[in-house]
Amino acid sequence: MRTILVVGIGTGSPEHLTVAAIDALNRADVLFVPEKGVSKAGLANVRRAIIERFVRREDPRIIGYAVPRRDAKNPEYEQGVAEWHQALSDIFALLVADVPEGGTGAFLVWGDPGLYDSTLRILELVPQSITVEVIPGITAVQALTAAHGIALNRIGQPVVITTGRQLGTVEVDTVVMLDGRMAFLDADPDLDIYWGAYLGTPDELLIAGRLGDVADRIATTRQVAREEHGWIMDTYLLRKPQ
Amino acid sequence: MRTILVVGIGTGSPEHLTVAAIDALNRADVLFVPEKGVSKAGLANVRRAIIERFVRREDPRIIGYAVPRRDAKNPEYEQGVAEWHQALSDIFALLVADVPEGGTGAFLVWGDPGLYDSTLRILELVPQSITVEVIPGITAVQALTAAHGIALNRIGQPVVITTGRQLGTVEVDTVVMLDGRMAFLDADPDLDIYWGAYLGTPDELLIAGRLGDVADRIATTRQVAREEHGWIMDTYLLRKPQ
Repeated sequence: MRTILVVGIGTGSPEHLTVAAIDALNRADVLFVPEKGVSKAGLANVRRAIIERFVRREDPRIIGYAVPRRDAKNPEYEQGVAEWHQALSDIFALLVADVPEGGTGAFLVWGDPGLYDSTLRILELVPQSITVEVIPGITAVQALTAAHGIALNRIGQPVVITTGRQLGTVEVDTVVMLDGRMAFLDADPDLDIYWGAYLGTPDELLIAGRLGDVADRIATTRQVAREEHGWIMDTYLLRKPQ
Repeated sequence: MRTILVVGIGTGSPEHLTVAAIDALNRADVLFVPEKGVSKAGLANVRRAIIERFVRREDPRIIGYAVPRRDAKNPEYEQGVAEWHQALSDIFALLVADVPEGGTGAFLVWGDPGLYDSTLRILELVPQSITVEVIPGITAVQALTAAHGIALNRIGQPVVITTGRQLGTVEVDTVVMLDGRMAFLDADPDLDIYWGAYLGTPDELLIAGRLGDVADRIATTRQVAREEHGWIMDTYLLRKPQ
């Protein structure tokens, strides 16, 4: 039996690591670092910097692996994701096989393993018998509201967390993640937006205001930053003004 | 000018503290610990244990303060909360006055300062000129899904975070917090529930299953635990079975 730790590492700041996450990285015999190709090298570098800073064993075993690209052209979104997960599970099975019997491997997961991350679902598909342990991490939602110095919810009111793909009319305060297509450009210009990218890192970008006033600036800032870094992770909160 | 750090400490496990939170506690000249009367002494004790474990200065200055009780009988919920915040802001003003000019004070906030916590709103009401800095923390939402080993959202699907008071018909996967009245007892029995209390602590309680099958067990477990500990903090996810 092998143990697989799925460790939330926060949104890019090594300071987001929890005591439990640092402990988990030190418990692992093998650390798995995804490398999503050259364009997201920045993300792999953050993970390696975290390992370098917090893992105390002399020579930790780090296994990098290539993440296959999801077929974004597949018109059936769910089927496309399912096929991508299947391809990833073949890779994960090989990684798990690299963990010694009775030993422990760890995946370093951006944000929190429970929020818009597939690691847990893919691990369910590997053929080996494994024990999975999840260590929570700071999400982009918390990093966003902390950076803007605001509460996520109004007093006693609900909040929706969704994706750019699913964003419709904003009735309830809504956090949007995974929005490569900039769905905010089609939202009601009278909404307030709190936008952030590279949250918690020295490259952090923040813009807030009436959507109609700042949407273009966000779109431009996003494009310039993406070209400069080769990747971008951004998140935003939309809500009706009080 | 004084700096006030609003530090998310997670849901009761000292292991939830982030590197940034530990750093913040060590930057503070004064640490503020709320004491919500005898019945919630357990919560104050967790905060004191965190300070004892992580604050390296010899004799940190810790100021305990009593939290006034909100008038839960006020039929105007929002007005009741507003009056409670006003009363708390008078106390916060005294606490801020205890921070030396140019110095730093820190509030230790359960979970994350952005999610169903009033500290940021109350600090807006104090008369002094202060700089507020927010340090994100692990929320009960992440502690819940980590403990159950599940993802919060279905693939690409939205999630609602709400309170027991606001819980209506569950169309979208929904996390319920602050539910002293056990609103789940009135929800569709065919929903799945993932329930947890004292998340991340040695006293953690977890129950999951079809709501109709486990609701009574959760209600009983909750009541027994609450009497034993003198307080309870619990959270749950409701969703339609797949």
